[in-house]
Amino acid sequence: MTDRRVMAVKSGGREGFAEWQACFARLDPTLELVYWEEALQRPDSIDYALVWDPDPGCLARMARLRVIFGSGAGVDGILLDPDLPRHVPLVRMAIPEATQRMGEFCCWAVLSLLKDARRMAIAQAARDWDYFEAPGRADLTTVGIMGLGTMGARSAAMLQGIGFRTIGWSRRRKDLPGVESYAGEAELPAFLARTDILVCLLPATPETRRIIRAETLALLPRGAGYVGVGRGMHHDLGDILAALDSGQLSGAMLDVFETEPLPADHPLWAHPRATITPHVASLPTRLERAGYVARSIAGFERGEALPNLYDPARGY
Amino acid sequence: MTDRRVMAVKSGGREGFAEWQACFARLDPTLELVYWEEALQRPDSIDYALVWDPDPGCLARMARLRVIFGSGAGVDGILLDPDLPRHVPLVRMAIPEATQRMGEFCCWAVLSLLKDARRMAIAQAARDWDYFEAPGRADLTTVGIMGLGTMGARSAAMLQGIGFRTIGWSRRRKDLPGVESYAGEAELPAFLARTDILVCLLPATPETRRIIRAETLALLPRGAGYVGVGRGMHHDLGDILAALDSGQLSGAMLDVFETEPLPADHPLWAHPRATITPHVASLPTRLERAGYVARSIAGFERGEALPNLYDPARGY
Repeated sequence: MTDRRVMAVKSGGREGFAEWQACFARLDPTLELVYWEEALQRPDSIDYALVWDPDPGCLARMARLRVIFGSGAGVDGILLDPDLPRHVPLVRMAIPEATQRMGEFCCWAVLSLLKDARRMAIAQAARDWDYFEAPGRADLTTVGIMGLGTMGARSAAMLQGIGFRTIGWSRRRKDLPGVESYAGEAELPAFLARTDILVCLLPATPETRRIIRAETLALLPRGAGYVGVGRGMHHDLGDILAALDSGQLSGAMLDVFETEPLPADHPLWAHPRATITPHVASLPTRLERAGYVARSIAGFERGEALPNLYDPARGY
Repeated sequence: MTDRRVMAVKSGGREGFAEWQACFARLDPTLELVYWEEALQRPDSIDYALVWDPDPGCLARMARLRVIFGSGAGVDGILLDPDLPRHVPLVRMAIPEATQRMGEFCCWAVLSLLKDARRMAIAQAARDWDYFEAPGRADLTTVGIMGLGTMGARSAAMLQGIGFRTIGWSRRRKDLPGVESYAGEAELPAFLARTDILVCLLPATPETRRIIRAETLALLPRGAGYVGVGRGMHHDLGDILAALDSGQLSGAMLDVFETEPLPADHPLWAHPRATITPHVASLPTRLERAGYVARSIAGFERGEALPNLYDPARGY
């Protein structure tokens, strides 16, 4: 199929658009990319949309839109649009490369807490040979993973390979090798009570908003660690800060925030037990993401099923 | 066997000695511990020695000495003694807990280089949301491990679980699952040329002194990473610094140094691509180490073979 098709892009601004263009020029030269502002001038010509946070009502005006691609792993920024055309398939960017990256990042973050990497970084900045007692051991440490989708499952498997004990919590019980499964609200306290290091990889849904807050943090053993790599809406930063100050949390690795960039005056930046990373946990390269979209479009145009469709019943 | 036996201790100074005493009081109350200075006053009463860097000639004066235990993984500090009583068995502290810890630390260090953790730590200190291109991916990265003993083998297996490609280099060819094996000086250049992140876990022998220096670093692909977790004598810090400055190395994680603590005025402390940790990679707790010694002594006194004996032919 070499017909010219048009894809509207709203992801990464003007700078990002130029990079998307460079990627697709290599992957599918017959696909015309148009920047969002321009697409809004010619909505009837748009076949596909690649978007992170489309302006409400705009996708609905694209009468011949065939597929919407989310440009990140979550599509909640798209679902905010009250006029989202629900009959158009919405594809989540659940790409294998991002799953691999997320697993790697979770291993790094969990090991950073286990080894007290933040303390070592602060000591290095002070040129201080901080001779401390042996840090924790993975095989004596239980990692509790909230959310056992593709990313949670892969992360659990990698963590097990390092020797960690893994347990998981999700809406419905899961059967994953080596992962003791807790399910539903009723089992959340028992799950948290056994968790030494908590990893949040839940989807962003109304039920998971602020699931990490004072009440849930208080159910962890004293001195637990927290890895926030799902979405910023999952955790209450004020409550995390309080738990770090009280010692209820011994450390936190935070990669996602409701306001990004995290404002420069936020106290977490300088907290001696918090590590801030700029939303890079599962970040695929633009070429990896463009490759996923190009392959999905090619399959779709050959009549194949689209991968990783948004499911309104699940909410993600 | 409940006869009173005496163990001389030179490891960790006075403070360490008190902690050793507390451990052995739990593990083997019939074993009398004496501090090194005191043991030198009564050398004929000493049955066992637990030492890191015994003063030359002193062990030879302990006429009824039955076993020498090294208090760390390497025994080179003991071998420096020209009068070391070679007829007394010398046990290396190759304890399973230390192997586990080393594997965990290697995963953390390699992932820290892959994810550019040092850059993120510097950005955090500046409260800078440093939005950069997606970091590297484990499954596109080859980790080259020098030294495929127990620790190297375990580290390789853990790294494979995360997705890294692993190759190894050792004196003799090894057959480890998933580790392409290079052997001997002749194959070192080919090994280095394929290595994206180099991990040194060699034993400390005359042949491995300064094996990581300008000539070997130059054989790595440009922008490689280095993890120095074996012994400080393996690497030339000046050459590592130069390679970091030239970009030949993109990052280094250094846990071991010939002079420890690393002097406060050393330029590596503040280098933006170097991470300094205070010799904690495989550090077992004192109780883990005391448990190993107590078990070894119990077995020895029952007539069992001692574990992990120093082998003069291998040099470690």
